[in-house]
Amino acid sequence: MGMKNAKDLGYTGVELSLLDSEKVKQEWLMDKLEELNLKVYTIATGQTYYTDGYSLYSEEEDKRQRAVNRVKGHIDFAARLGSAVIIGGIRGKITAQAEGFKELEEKGMIALRACVKYAEGKGVILLLEPVNRYETNIINTLDEGLSLIEEIGSDHLKLLPDTFHMNIEESSIEESVVRAGSSIGYIHFADSNRLAPGWGHIDFPRVISALKKIKYSGPVGIEVLPKPDDYKAAEQAFRYMSSITKKVRI
Amino acid sequence: MGMKNAKDLGYTGVELSLLDSEKVKQEWLMDKLEELNLKVYTIATGQTYYTDGYSLYSEEEDKRQRAVNRVKGHIDFAARLGSAVIIGGIRGKITAQAEGFKELEEKGMIALRACVKYAEGKGVILLLEPVNRYETNIINTLDEGLSLIEEIGSDHLKLLPDTFHMNIEESSIEESVVRAGSSIGYIHFADSNRLAPGWGHIDFPRVISALKKIKYSGPVGIEVLPKPDDYKAAEQAFRYMSSITKKVRI
Repeated sequence: MGMKNAKDLGYTGVELSLLDSEKVKQEWLMDKLEELNLKVYTIATGQTYYTDGYSLYSEEEDKRQRAVNRVKGHIDFAARLGSAVIIGGIRGKITAQAEGFKELEEKGMIALRACVKYAEGKGVILLLEPVNRYETNIINTLDEGLSLIEEIGSDHLKLLPDTFHMNIEESSIEESVVRAGSSIGYIHFADSNRLAPGWGHIDFPRVISALKKIKYSGPVGIEVLPKPDDYKAAEQAFRYMSSITKKVRI
Repeated sequence: MGMKNAKDLGYTGVELSLLDSEKVKQEWLMDKLEELNLKVYTIATGQTYYTDGYSLYSEEEDKRQRAVNRVKGHIDFAARLGSAVIIGGIRGKITAQAEGFKELEEKGMIALRACVKYAEGKGVILLLEPVNRYETNIINTLDEGLSLIEEIGSDHLKLLPDTFHMNIEESSIEESVVRAGSSIGYIHFADSNRLAPGWGHIDFPRVISALKKIKYSGPVGIEVLPKPDDYKAAEQAFRYMSSITKKVRI
């Protein structure tokens, strides 16, 4: 959706989904954002996998390296924007079985550590997004994400729960949020069918209560399908969110 | 899970997942079932697509025909067993875009009609199972299933809602069940994470209420992952279902 529309609807910031930050007209984009007084909360990076096939857990050394380089480029841009960088779809999928699986898991960890180290140097937060079983086999639940974050042991790696994925993977959405607590660095709201909040059956007031319980004070991102069209989806999301809380910044 | 275990746990019947009914030792199986006093409520047919790649909506004429033949074989066996036959995964996925999509949709309808006609002749019910977006692009929601059933116009084609898929696809699980009403011929219970009911966050008492509202009097099938193992999953499902209702046969 156009940034102008987002601003007009009342949004304070946006998420940018970028293939390669080094090829983005950064100055032009930053001028535009300043003009509209919009923040960029996050840079989404999954396109690197979906479009080009490079991923942090790829079987091929070269593709892992290219994925790391893309993340580094996003981190550079994020440092300029004051944004965080999402590590979601760019993890890819582990295609090998058994022993091969473990081996790739270790290689992926090396790639991920390289990204985290670079982010630390630039003062940028990386957001690990658990994604449902159909899209990846690397980190589906918040608990799995927490274990990984603990293993890496950096305060520059945080968790990004997404309510659509949580609806499929978590035994209890609210309890998982509470358990994750201060490890949560950002959150995506989408309803159970990936439509705008209010058009599915997720109990968002309960999710908001859980966020309040852990004193989450960051923004809430809306990541939904552009249905019936992008404007209507963004409008519904903003109206619905405003109706259930005045206290959570969107 | 072994049929003996199912019987011991209290189940009155089972679902058989079969690749090719014509190659099943039908007499042996029927003796076994009689010995245990277990019914076969349904024959699941998805293996034909997952294992052999034949599907009702395949791009290849030959594969569509083989899928139809498999369904006919299952219908013959179902007639002997007094079972229904599920049309779920065997629909496959439509791989073509735009015009090609519509064309395959029509060819799939011809294949489906052939199955329905054969089922009518044998007095067997076919159960159309809506499946979530990640597994198919042919009938994801109950409403889409209802439209298809209406188009085919046979009382031998009924709907099979599955709560795991509904959790992803339906705006409201209960309202969809009520809307489908007497078109529902069977139902699968699985929790939001495909584990046994009670281990996820689906509100099953509300689903049961919806089923009572439409006066559904058939059995409830349990289709869950064998986690932590098959016996424990079946045990949890039976115990949980018994705890929430004494009135719905399992």
